[in-house]
Amino acid sequence: MGVKRIPTAESSLLTAREAAWRIAEGALTSAELVAASLERIAAEEPRVEAWEFLDRDKAMAEAEERDRRRRRGLPLGPLHGVPVGLKDIIDVKGMPTGNGTPIDAGKRPFVDAAVTRRLRAAGAVIIGKTVSTEFAYYHPGKTCNPHDPTRTPGGSSSGSAAAVATGMVPLALGSQTNGSVIRPASFCGVVGFKPTFGAIPRTGVLTLAPSLDHIGIFARTIEDVALSELLMGPDEQDMDAQENPGPLSDTALAEPPVTPTLAFIKTPFWERADATTQTAFGELVEALGEQVDEVELPEVFARGAGWLEGVMAAEMARNLGHYVDHTPNETSEKFRTLIAEGRAMRAPDYLAARDMRRVLRDALGPIFDRFDAIVTPAAPGEATEGLESTGDPSFCSLWTFCGLPAISLPLMTGPNGLPLGVQLVGQHGQDARLLRTARWLVRTLSEEGNV
Amino acid sequence: MGVKRIPTAESSLLTAREAAWRIAEGALTSAELVAASLERIAAEEPRVEAWEFLDRDKAMAEAEERDRRRRRGLPLGPLHGVPVGLKDIIDVKGMPTGNGTPIDAGKRPFVDAAVTRRLRAAGAVIIGKTVSTEFAYYHPGKTCNPHDPTRTPGGSSSGSAAAVATGMVPLALGSQTNGSVIRPASFCGVVGFKPTFGAIPRTGVLTLAPSLDHIGIFARTIEDVALSELLMGPDEQDMDAQENPGPLSDTALAEPPVTPTLAFIKTPFWERADATTQTAFGELVEALGEQVDEVELPEVFARGAGWLEGVMAAEMARNLGHYVDHTPNETSEKFRTLIAEGRAMRAPDYLAARDMRRVLRDALGPIFDRFDAIVTPAAPGEATEGLESTGDPSFCSLWTFCGLPAISLPLMTGPNGLPLGVQLVGQHGQDARLLRTARWLVRTLSEEGNV
Repeated sequence: MGVKRIPTAESSLLTAREAAWRIAEGALTSAELVAASLERIAAEEPRVEAWEFLDRDKAMAEAEERDRRRRRGLPLGPLHGVPVGLKDIIDVKGMPTGNGTPIDAGKRPFVDAAVTRRLRAAGAVIIGKTVSTEFAYYHPGKTCNPHDPTRTPGGSSSGSAAAVATGMVPLALGSQTNGSVIRPASFCGVVGFKPTFGAIPRTGVLTLAPSLDHIGIFARTIEDVALSELLMGPDEQDMDAQENPGPLSDTALAEPPVTPTLAFIKTPFWERADATTQTAFGELVEALGEQVDEVELPEVFARGAGWLEGVMAAEMARNLGHYVDHTPNETSEKFRTLIAEGRAMRAPDYLAARDMRRVLRDALGPIFDRFDAIVTPAAPGEATEGLESTGDPSFCSLWTFCGLPAISLPLMTGPNGLPLGVQLVGQHGQDARLLRTARWLVRTLSEEGNV
Repeated sequence: MGVKRIPTAESSLLTAREAAWRIAEGALTSAELVAASLERIAAEEPRVEAWEFLDRDKAMAEAEERDRRRRRGLPLGPLHGVPVGLKDIIDVKGMPTGNGTPIDAGKRPFVDAAVTRRLRAAGAVIIGKTVSTEFAYYHPGKTCNPHDPTRTPGGSSSGSAAAVATGMVPLALGSQTNGSVIRPASFCGVVGFKPTFGAIPRTGVLTLAPSLDHIGIFARTIEDVALSELLMGPDEQDMDAQENPGPLSDTALAEPPVTPTLAFIKTPFWERADATTQTAFGELVEALGEQVDEVELPEVFARGAGWLEGVMAAEMARNLGHYVDHTPNETSEKFRTLIAEGRAMRAPDYLAARDMRRVLRDALGPIFDRFDAIVTPAAPGEATEGLESTGDPSFCSLWTFCGLPAISLPLMTGPNGLPLGVQLVGQHGQDARLLRTARWLVRTLSEEGNV
């Protein structure tokens, strides 16, 4: 078919789109690709520990089934034959869902999560479950940062970020209730994308705080995270999943009709950012010249992270409190403290905090009237040392609270040579435009020699 | 046009559909109809006190504008020229919204509520605001029961029910957070209909408890309450108004394809029903023979009213608590007690209670698989004596909590000759089918000489 075959071992470094295209063209088989993926895992996993569960035989059998399907000339999905990893809070029939806690170890779901079904429908081969922190909250799992094993990969979607960063899989799913996609993407140096709240249904995924829980996606390119469009659209079991900002790819891959402009926002957490991050963002703003203006958030945003934390504590107490009651000794102190805080919260205070989601989102309206996206750090700095903490989600809290689409781009480097993410935040429901702006930013900075 | 003209004074007894049809045909003018309505109000209002605000001159001016519009041959809405009354928690531009409290007396809204806009678009003439209890909760307004002025009209939509019962208007809007449409409809002897939760947007209506607040409608016929279809459909300001069970009329006015069956449910509150009500329902079940089966609710429903009360207290504390803080002496003790209860509630308990809305709704699935509707009392008996209480909403709580469509039909009479409503409850979103079943029930019972 004119497509050049590449050595099989290198195929694990293909993007999801390239891999799917090669499989469709017959230049690569799913079995070759999944085998390369498993080889990469065999080589890297002892060092990185990204996986909670892997079923190599089943993955190979599924890949061969995909290849048979292609040989029979049947229609192929956009991810036909491509291996993906799912955070271990997402149900996959035939695999245990551990939720990052020994209490749920070995728990077997009876049905696929909605996203699992949609991935399978797109032809993906689900090869295993990636490490999550305890209940996708703060207490870390076993995963190390692939760039420095003495540092955290970030959390809570630790394994998904690390697996993509090491080329184990081209695509992995995670979740974000505060900063659990954007932060590990920043620390591991991959592209992490959290679509608009409600864009991807959470049916069959561990419920932390339904007013805040988002599904997100990790990949090595913006083009690949645009494949999250395959997961979008209403699901009748998830009352909040009524948005569908997709399809994304046509817009995301197009040229912006006019040169985008960005609002650089320091946020109330700017002092938490380390010197390198502050300097790097200063240079970024300078490099972009007239295309970026620094904008101050209205005063009310100073309280935004507190409101998110209150909503998160109350809803997690509601949904996960029973774990503390039944098996307190198998939960972390940080988790028990959260549940106690949530249980102490009064209902009207909770409701007042939750109502602020919409108030803050509306308060950003004038910014999105003027700018295509907000640019701000993905994290205060590069991955923090030690594996006891997964780092600080502050730079994500406001955007998660408002349910806005956000992406972390691995465009900068910290003082120790580790990745530093640039976070772009888009208008509610304008996910495709956000990705288009992100592609423009990457191209602009690389043309100017800044990355 | 072949339509017989009737004496103008009698026109106030026309149904909304008949009146609109006569106006469209030229057999009646809106000015004649509104004048008849105002005459009726002049005669009945001193006794009944259904109105909080009336603007006779403006009503006549609007009616004349409607008549001019018709004479110019412009398109007419389905309520063209028909007078309606709105509960005084619904914003109408140009009229004060009193919310049943002296604290808000004279407060003037700047924009119409969503339902007000939709009524105007349908051609209705909004002649005034009907009496609500304090914040649409329990503390009564001035309205008396039109059948016996020593008795309550029910609440909280007291004025709307009484205004329709006395022929002041053919149509009036109310709201129901627990039993505020079905109960006054029962006590006043009119048809009261509360559509599926989310069917009618609440934008511009006083927010009590957004998880429970419904807009409802009063009329003298089932055909007229089907006109609530004109109010249905999404509104971007009301996140919960994403349902649209309409259009209703085509189905509601049709014959059932097979003879309907009803589930007679006593509910956990049966012992609160007085002897006449219990006997009357026994006879109703007998009269319907094979078309009705008594069904017991699953055990869990015994706690349903408590869950509703908890959600209501917490959300009302959130939304109305500031009234107690700023002007406690102008609020009722019952209201202050509710706010204090809501403020004491813990957030996870609130969330657990709210989640039960869906659990209970799903638990009714097997009943709606077998039956077209549930039949149950609208209230424990006829309107209670005295004007200090608006009566007991228990027989409404479960269905309101589940967000199911419900209708009260004035089919029975109590020991003092006052009306007793029969409540039919339909499946979520099956509002049209509920109205069709209601028409069948009325016809069946009248053919058998039971009403």
